[in-house]
Amino acid sequence: MKIAILPGDGIGPEITAQAVRVLNALGESFEMEQAEVGGAGYAAHGHPLPPATLALAKSADAVLFGAVGDYKYDTLERALRPEQAILGLRKELGLFANLRPAILYPELAGASTLKPEVVSGLDILIIRELTGDIYFGKPRGVRECPDGPFKGEREGFDTMRYAESEIRRIAHVAFQAAQKRGKRVTSVDKANVLETFQFWRDIVTDVHKEYGDVELEHMYVDNAAMQLVRAPKKFDVIVTGNMFGDILSDCAAMLTGSIGMLPSASLDANNKGLYEPSHGSAPDIAGKGIANPLATILSAAMMLRYSLDKAGQADRIEAAVKQVLAQGLRTPDIYEAGTTKVGTEEMGNAVVNALR
Amino acid sequence: MKIAILPGDGIGPEITAQAVRVLNALGESFEMEQAEVGGAGYAAHGHPLPPATLALAKSADAVLFGAVGDYKYDTLERALRPEQAILGLRKELGLFANLRPAILYPELAGASTLKPEVVSGLDILIIRELTGDIYFGKPRGVRECPDGPFKGEREGFDTMRYAESEIRRIAHVAFQAAQKRGKRVTSVDKANVLETFQFWRDIVTDVHKEYGDVELEHMYVDNAAMQLVRAPKKFDVIVTGNMFGDILSDCAAMLTGSIGMLPSASLDANNKGLYEPSHGSAPDIAGKGIANPLATILSAAMMLRYSLDKAGQADRIEAAVKQVLAQGLRTPDIYEAGTTKVGTEEMGNAVVNALR
Ligand SMILES: CC(C)[C@H](C(=O)O)[C@@H](O)C(=O)O
Ligand SMILES: CC(C)[C@H](C(=O)O)[C@@H](O)C(=O)O
Repeated sequence: MKIAILPGDGIGPEITAQAVRVLNALGESFEMEQAEVGGAGYAAHGHPLPPATLALAKSADAVLFGAVGDYKYDTLERALRPEQAILGLRKELGLFANLRPAILYPELAGASTLKPEVVSGLDILIIRELTGDIYFGKPRGVRECPDGPFKGEREGFDTMRYAESEIRRIAHVAFQAAQKRGKRVTSVDKANVLETFQFWRDIVTDVHKEYGDVELEHMYVDNAAMQLVRAPKKFDVIVTGNMFGDILSDCAAMLTGSIGMLPSASLDANNKGLYEPSHGSAPDIAGKGIANPLATILSAAMMLRYSLDKAGQADRIEAAVKQVLAQGLRTPDIYEAGTTKVGTEEMGNAVVNALR
Repeated sequence: MKIAILPGDGIGPEITAQAVRVLNALGESFEMEQAEVGGAGYAAHGHPLPPATLALAKSADAVLFGAVGDYKYDTLERALRPEQAILGLRKELGLFANLRPAILYPELAGASTLKPEVVSGLDILIIRELTGDIYFGKPRGVRECPDGPFKGEREGFDTMRYAESEIRRIAHVAFQAAQKRGKRVTSVDKANVLETFQFWRDIVTDVHKEYGDVELEHMYVDNAAMQLVRAPKKFDVIVTGNMFGDILSDCAAMLTGSIGMLPSASLDANNKGLYEPSHGSAPDIAGKGIANPLATILSAAMMLRYSLDKAGQADRIEAAVKQVLAQGLRTPDIYEAGTTKVGTEEMGNAVVNALR
């Protein structure tokens, strides 16, 4: 089985290196091949998603992705900026289902800005559609406003859109995920304003007929943002579009206070996937050896479970991570008085040791 | 000066009645005229925004709005549903600037789900553009997908758009509001993905040149949702588009834990405005006399300040509200042990008495 390793920028290389060490410690024989992506792709080959990197990702069974972005690329034209690599990989690989668990580890309850009783035991799964919506819709651009009160002025514009089968397939992913969890799905939309999301609501309601054992509720996105802050534990699985999912999944991750712990999976129709930590490239702390590698290590566990059919190995990694937390080891982002502060590599060591 | 009173549905009539009493207690001679809106408009005249209601709103100097929506109208076709009245009023009256303060009253710090140190003293102002973006953009609808992998299928679609002058005018509102506060503006966009918001960022940056005394930062919407949860007090004024503003302003309101306290203003280019509480119509508690009227009373204060040029009277109302909180009076939504639980009318009485 072949894994493409795309470390990227900022802390990406450091945290990915630890995840690779953990994978190597499992006693499996994975073929791993590395390539530049994001700013590193641009620096080496003039493009954030160089053709060789894309080819490697396509040929692999799964992609382990670090993070992309660095201040030094901020002034590039948009098409060459690091985050275009993520958008390109999602589109080219057809990674339409983004799974983002928001879990609060009991040991880290203090890290949340929310009161312990509001978030302790939090375990929700956000499923974000990842290849449709306003992210890729056309036409888009800057044009002369064609009509109305601003006719003749310049205007920026984009197209939001969802086709029926795009909604159906992500709804199936959500209902099936819920069947393995709390059996409740909250579909988040803005059906009171948007045609796209009235259509979304209609189709999700229709797909739901096939899942009699799962409860479905519809919620407007503004209300969902409120309920995430007010009573996040009321949710089980949230399914939503690309744009709303971008906002809500980051909001939910931050509720835990420990975004450095949260993995993500982006899956295609055949469970091939790209796995990356929910946090970003944090260029401000890059190279200092203090980044938290656990989200990337847990992303590798998701990869084993969803793409490589090795759920047992995924369980082992997750148990090892829980063990190092129980031992009191903390990178600076999750450090609290009374625990032991460690760096990126020490944390990787600890997980590798816990696996033995 | 003429004020249109549009109580609407659910708790709308109860809370508006208390705000009217407060206005009457100021010793001014306002002309107030009432009309049906939302579900009540539909029930009385077959449309959520009956022509006579719209005409009244247009002829008035300001509109005091309760809330709209009730379960019984949920099955109406979209064009007849209560919330269409809000969208119609915004569009017809040109109410492009929505001002939503998120303030945590020290007495109510316990109501927040966030830790006291994260939110105590919170005082941010969200300025949401209210007549552009994907809310009103055309074309929109359900059509046969014209091209791409889903060609021929049904798809829902909408158009996001902002013309240059729409961005300029809301940017001016934000910079001028910041000049009277903490002198910092955070413009929230998604310039890394959307053409509309790259254009937004460019124009806001340009308008900023006229405001040398105000600091401007740009932030992606997903990051803004995270920072609101992580460190909301770092913000002063947030300015953003209609869709992102819908989500972020509700999220920010919920941070305070007391959305029953938060007013809003929606202004046109001449400071005529519509004023309404940030909360909804809460049909589940309608008619029980327990709704919190303070957000509507504080909305009336905003009306005096922004549309009726009576800042002194606005100050009086705000001081009276602080006084009743200091007296320990609380409606059930903000009740805590050790305070005195009161109903809607008692709370109105208390504010009227405090004004004397
Ligand atoms: C970098 C950006 C294009 C991306 C997105 O908006 O999808 C990121 O925010 C994410 O959530 O992975
Ligand atoms: C009711 C709805 C159309 C409205 C909106 O989305 O603007 C509401 O959520 C608001 O924020 O006033």
